[in-house]
Amino acid sequence: MISSKMQGLVDNNSVIRQMFEEGLKMAEQFGKENVYDFSLGNPNVPAPQKVRTTIERLLREEDPTDLHGYMSNAGFPSVRKKIADSLNRRFDTDFKEDNILMTVGAAGGLNCALKALLDPGDEVITFAPFFLEYKNYVANYDGKLIAIKPDTKTFQPDIDELERAVTKKTKAVIINNPNNPTGVIYTEETIKRIAHVLYKKQEEYKTTIFIISDEPYRELVYTGASVPYITKYYKNTIVGYSFSKTLSLPGERIGYLVLPDEAEDYERLFQALTIANRILGFVNAPSLMQKVVAECIDEKADIGYYSKNRDLLYDALKEYGYECIRPEGAFYMFIKSPVEDEKDFVAKAKEHHILLVPGSSFMCPGYVRLAYCVSYETCLNSLPGFKKLAEELEI
Amino acid sequence: MISSKMQGLVDNNSVIRQMFEEGLKMAEQFGKENVYDFSLGNPNVPAPQKVRTTIERLLREEDPTDLHGYMSNAGFPSVRKKIADSLNRRFDTDFKEDNILMTVGAAGGLNCALKALLDPGDEVITFAPFFLEYKNYVANYDGKLIAIKPDTKTFQPDIDELERAVTKKTKAVIINNPNNPTGVIYTEETIKRIAHVLYKKQEEYKTTIFIISDEPYRELVYTGASVPYITKYYKNTIVGYSFSKTLSLPGERIGYLVLPDEAEDYERLFQALTIANRILGFVNAPSLMQKVVAECIDEKADIGYYSKNRDLLYDALKEYGYECIRPEGAFYMFIKSPVEDEKDFVAKAKEHHILLVPGSSFMCPGYVRLAYCVSYETCLNSLPGFKKLAEELEI
Repeated sequence: MISSKMQGLVDNNSVIRQMFEEGLKMAEQFGKENVYDFSLGNPNVPAPQKVRTTIERLLREEDPTDLHGYMSNAGFPSVRKKIADSLNRRFDTDFKEDNILMTVGAAGGLNCALKALLDPGDEVITFAPFFLEYKNYVANYDGKLIAIKPDTKTFQPDIDELERAVTKKTKAVIINNPNNPTGVIYTEETIKRIAHVLYKKQEEYKTTIFIISDEPYRELVYTGASVPYITKYYKNTIVGYSFSKTLSLPGERIGYLVLPDEAEDYERLFQALTIANRILGFVNAPSLMQKVVAECIDEKADIGYYSKNRDLLYDALKEYGYECIRPEGAFYMFIKSPVEDEKDFVAKAKEHHILLVPGSSFMCPGYVRLAYCVSYETCLNSLPGFKKLAEELEI
Repeated sequence: MISSKMQGLVDNNSVIRQMFEEGLKMAEQFGKENVYDFSLGNPNVPAPQKVRTTIERLLREEDPTDLHGYMSNAGFPSVRKKIADSLNRRFDTDFKEDNILMTVGAAGGLNCALKALLDPGDEVITFAPFFLEYKNYVANYDGKLIAIKPDTKTFQPDIDELERAVTKKTKAVIINNPNNPTGVIYTEETIKRIAHVLYKKQEEYKTTIFIISDEPYRELVYTGASVPYITKYYKNTIVGYSFSKTLSLPGERIGYLVLPDEAEDYERLFQALTIANRILGFVNAPSLMQKVVAECIDEKADIGYYSKNRDLLYDALKEYGYECIRPEGAFYMFIKSPVEDEKDFVAKAKEHHILLVPGSSFMCPGYVRLAYCVSYETCLNSLPGFKKLAEELEI
């Protein structure tokens, strides 16, 4: 009776979300402080104080019918202008309000982009490991997600494989920078090489190939690192952004898409994105939060907080004998499973009340993801468990 | 380059939304007070004061990582419980939190319902006149919307036509009660007859047919009228609700779905709805607003405000010679076009700075919709224009 597309999904619900629900139950059973739930990218850093004071000020100063009312499906023009200005200041770009579409988080934005672009059977390429929801998002529009195998040395995209994977049917390439689940930043060199391949393939096939760059972690980068702004390297780009991580507002569902003027058929595509926002049922990004993020555009979550967690965990886990990648951005660490099937490792870790996500949930078996957007105490208190686990597994 | 499904939509953008954008431009040009924009269901009544005080209290009392954080995709359990309790109190139902799924407005909810139910080629029946977005929502999942012609005497659904329209492929029937654009309430008798036909057809075809009841205007009913609670008449029902109109929060995108225990395969279907909420990119209904509506569940917008507008406009328009239906609910009035093509009437009205929506946008040509969720002054000041228009058209 349920649609056939949904049958499989119901049978095989998201592992990450299941762990989240399980984590809540375990917290109830054993006490929140005795469960080390590293399963979800739900920031533990509170939203900056300015979020609260801005909401309070908006409630005092603005007419509630404007503050909570409909606006253009693309979002409040003043909000879009402020976001464009902020990007221009920080990345030396040249966006106007008409390059910005306010969305229901990055997930909402990606769905609008795929709805606007994909015909049934179109191919979308991405690089493993990747956020497995991409597969569902692409399937929503009857596209086919092609995953390129991970280069487990650097966890940079494998550009030679990309070149082989692009076909006449390739409509888009999704990249996620900084990367979930590895914490790796795709370098400028990588971006340039991707752009080069796609320009060549567009020419060869006389097609249009979009890069959809999913960048919710753009501001979460550690010392010295920086994330190239992709529109400067490739014209046919849609950038998806979310304030979930930077402002610790994941439940509020607020983000935006950027479509540069240089993109092919820009005007019609921007309209298509706006219509997609409407007909997919988002209608518009939540109105109060649009105004909040516009005022808090220069705020960001406390990077030091995540950095401290990263250093603690990385150093300890290395000491215990685990192999892991030192994250440069985001708040994830990708750990090589000490046993062949990483699901066994995840199960063993759970015995120590440590919740991790198997790499197969990111199309990268043999690894596990640890989300360290939790309290320092959680990280600290999890260490004896990690140590015992290492001993048990004799690594 | 844009997907073929979207091409037509870009060429032929929503008339209602276009008028909204045009209204904004006209307001800039002629002054807001000189444009009588009756085109959009954007409530002019401010949200109840309690919305503001609740937000302020939540900001003071709740941990921001909870208030703005992720929760289960179905929504905060405590919020869902409060909504279930409120429904039980008011409609003598027996819902629990697991019958309630928090959604990004009613539009988000309807999309989840259709995603969960439809296979390509499945048919969804609705009754004209209807909110034309239903067509896009059904098309999102490759379903086919079958529109039953309006009974322009009563604007109640034509049940004999329904009986003829149901086929083996019928997966759902969408009703909208109170109705946009007519302001008519489907009576208990109508609901019983719809249920009767569908029970019979389910039996005959050995299929499952859902009623999807879109009820954002449930609380907006005038003296004496009441809206039957549909789950009491038919088991396979999904109710979609939004706080957009009742609490004047249309921009905030907050609503819910109700799926009763009695629905076939309830457990799997509820899971499918929850997963649809996730993979369509909503992820969850905006978190702060979930908590706000749970606290404001017994508040409602000032019905007297709309009632005053209705009486003023209805009486005046009748006096000028227009034929219209006296609304019993919602804040729309459906006016018979005095000229054959109602688009000509809409164009003429615009010359008097009156913005109306053609009935063809609701699959009911020959009529226009007037949304009177505007200020009393707007209604009052539009009257000379309506009068002149009647004279010009010699009605």
